[in-house]
Amino acid sequence: MDPDLVDDELARRIAFVLEVDKLKEIERRTHVLVSGRRENTAEHSWHVALMATVLHPYANEKVDLLHTIKMLLVHDIVEIDAGDTFAYADQSNKADDEAAAATRLFGLLPDAQRDELRALWEEFDARATPESRFANAMDRLMPALHNYYGGGGTWREHSVTRAQVDVRLSPIGEGSESLWRWLQPLLDEAALRGDIGVA
Amino acid sequence: MDPDLVDDELARRIAFVLEVDKLKEIERRTHVLVSGRRENTAEHSWHVALMATVLHPYANEKVDLLHTIKMLLVHDIVEIDAGDTFAYADQSNKADDEAAAATRLFGLLPDAQRDELRALWEEFDARATPESRFANAMDRLMPALHNYYGGGGTWREHSVTRAQVDVRLSPIGEGSESLWRWLQPLLDEAALRGDIGVA
Repeated sequence: MDPDLVDDELARRIAFVLEVDKLKEIERRTHVLVSGRRENTAEHSWHVALMATVLHPYANEKVDLLHTIKMLLVHDIVEIDAGDTFAYADQSNKADDEAAAATRLFGLLPDAQRDELRALWEEFDARATPESRFANAMDRLMPALHNYYGGGGTWREHSVTRAQVDVRLSPIGEGSESLWRWLQPLLDEAALRGDIGVA
Repeated sequence: MDPDLVDDELARRIAFVLEVDKLKEIERRTHVLVSGRRENTAEHSWHVALMATVLHPYANEKVDLLHTIKMLLVHDIVEIDAGDTFAYADQSNKADDEAAAATRLFGLLPDAQRDELRALWEEFDARATPESRFANAMDRLMPALHNYYGGGGTWREHSVTRAQVDVRLSPIGEGSESLWRWLQPLLDEAALRGDIGVA
């Protein structure tokens, strides 16, 4: 290969690596367990990737773990431009903003890698493959655990109802019936203690 | 399989997932690029895992990417108990503290997974496999990029010399000669502008 091309490809990859540092500045609604501060999207992405490593035996369908983890590492990087959209908020502009962000951010990379990572991001959102269904299950389960073990968290702050929680978290069952079943008594208990509203 | 055993294994995995949330509270010396605040080890772990995804074509030896990424996801979790040890500081108690931390933290998991993740952590430190050499290259390269692109960072704060930097960063070359060569002009420039000391 032409050494100049190699150098240009490396420069593009490094530019991407530097740019995604900004994900550490994107604050989510979810609170970490010890200090209670809000978590950022970079550390969230690490957590769900590790979670997938540990919990993938519970996936409904056998998943390619590398594919799943790569998807989780990039699933939220569009938030660098588009910001985090709260799960229970109006999401009407979200798709356009995120598509533009994906074009810019993945576009920093050499073409083949741009296409691979953008496809992973699109696959995550479409939830049409075993890997994306399980990745989405991780992404929904972790905030539920943060809320349950963290005194109610965003459920309580935003007076979220059980019906809203059931809709929001139902992708957990699409990815892992056993994790979804395991979670039910926790949601029942959260409702009993008033962390989740009854309406 | 006995359903009770499945439930116990799941409970252990969830306990691990919750416990590692604490890695978000472990502050490293390195500063993130935009705000300049210190980064925590969870977001660092995400960054190097994504970096390995993007840069693995530059590894000296062909690497198993899943193995490399899993290693990077867990390579620093012992810091939950043992804390972060600054790269240029006395590290005399580090090994014992980290071994005890590994026993406790990986020990939360079911035995087979405990053994797998602990072995990955040990492999990372031993730098005796292609994957661990490349993973270590990522772990050393990112702070160098943070320092270079962030006004000198920990090099400047701790009056680190070029000789110290060369020793500390030499594992980059063990993992990727092309990245190590690419980095040299940046280190030269950092020395010229006084980010790195001459002695």
